[in-house]
Amino acid sequence: MSLSQGQIKLITSLTKKKYRKEHGLFVAEGVKVVRELLASDLQLSMLFCTPDFNSGLESKVQEISEKELKKISNLKSPNKVLALFKIPVSNFVAPEGITVALDAINDPGNLGTIIRLCDWFGIRQIVCSEDTVDCYNQKVIQSTMGSITRVTISYLDLPAYLAQVKIPVFAAEMQGENVYKSNLPSAAVLVMGNEANGISREVSDTVSNFLTIPRFGTCQKTESLNVSTATAILLSEFKRNS
Amino acid sequence: MSLSQGQIKLITSLTKKKYRKEHGLFVAEGVKVVRELLASDLQLSMLFCTPDFNSGLESKVQEISEKELKKISNLKSPNKVLALFKIPVSNFVAPEGITVALDAINDPGNLGTIIRLCDWFGIRQIVCSEDTVDCYNQKVIQSTMGSITRVTISYLDLPAYLAQVKIPVFAAEMQGENVYKSNLPSAAVLVMGNEANGISREVSDTVSNFLTIPRFGTCQKTESLNVSTATAILLSEFKRNS
Repeated sequence: MSLSQGQIKLITSLTKKKYRKEHGLFVAEGVKVVRELLASDLQLSMLFCTPDFNSGLESKVQEISEKELKKISNLKSPNKVLALFKIPVSNFVAPEGITVALDAINDPGNLGTIIRLCDWFGIRQIVCSEDTVDCYNQKVIQSTMGSITRVTISYLDLPAYLAQVKIPVFAAEMQGENVYKSNLPSAAVLVMGNEANGISREVSDTVSNFLTIPRFGTCQKTESLNVSTATAILLSEFKRNS
Repeated sequence: MSLSQGQIKLITSLTKKKYRKEHGLFVAEGVKVVRELLASDLQLSMLFCTPDFNSGLESKVQEISEKELKKISNLKSPNKVLALFKIPVSNFVAPEGITVALDAINDPGNLGTIIRLCDWFGIRQIVCSEDTVDCYNQKVIQSTMGSITRVTISYLDLPAYLAQVKIPVFAAEMQGENVYKSNLPSAAVLVMGNEANGISREVSDTVSNFLTIPRFGTCQKTESLNVSTATAILLSEFKRNS
């Protein structure tokens, strides 16, 4: 069955957060990503695939041509399948172990990398400021693979959230304590800030412990580490002795 | 003075490695990156800028209009200046401390991130297999900022190089020794492999110690860490006790 104009319009509208929210749907593409999400708790809304993709599904499947797939795909090389999944109700959980908090992370690639890191390190929850990039942005979905289904991600008033947590709040800062010499607790919030501006003043006021990753290079001009690699090193430090 | 057709042709040709090699030149753009490179040991070939950029140079400068800059720029938002620098003669140095070896890294963003990580951790040398992405690729230049001037990067026959080094050769592998429990030497080569395929068989044969970053998440399906974040964690482990 051919795609209707309405379907094309719906699917292409989902590149915008506003319409993802309105319809409660997000897009995933490609054999590997879609298979991982199909095997998760996520609810499928509709799946569009070329005849050579075996979905194993009885319903909610529509066969389309490669040409049609190209019309609705956001990938350079569309790969057999595009699926619409329902955005789950955010099931915010009580903090346990390490929670990662993101303050205005802008880049979908960074958010995707951080979600994968959390999944790797067994961190179950990410809380994000309202102005952090949407985790149902397709670039995030494509780069996290299935990790997004194993980490709970909530968007909330971050300073208000941090002000009321009962565990220490850590953040990275050039003047902080050497992370390699710190005694890190097993329960804490780790805040990572915006790529250009770091953490906001309001968030900074809630931080109890500032950490720094020492620079071994002697050049003062060295750019700071980017937020993904800094998160990798800090999570590794929190978990390495656990 | 307006850009000549020859200049436009030369500059746009430098997006290709073949022409960078032929002309011995690479492109850097934007106020911040160009200023950092001007302040380094690199030799400027020619600088093109809009009238509001103060280069402080007497020669090798050509003022152009914003419209002309747009013609030669590879950035979405061209920022005042585009410069051609001479590709330095690779000054391969004897290994000292930690050397990072890259086996067929494909993505310019990953190479850029790894160069910045090396600069941060005071690592002076990266050796790359011939099929690793070119470090004078403009995406690498733009993302490393000045780091590329502080780390020596050589392209060579990697298995042959590794076979003759007199220090231990480490690489990451799922079945390796827990990196958090390893006694890591202060002089070593750390090999990082291709994004999709890891390290090649020929390189693997030269590795003396395999390391693994333990996964704390319990899901077996979790994707491996990407090469940039894995490099961040491993370099941090090599340096944290030094």
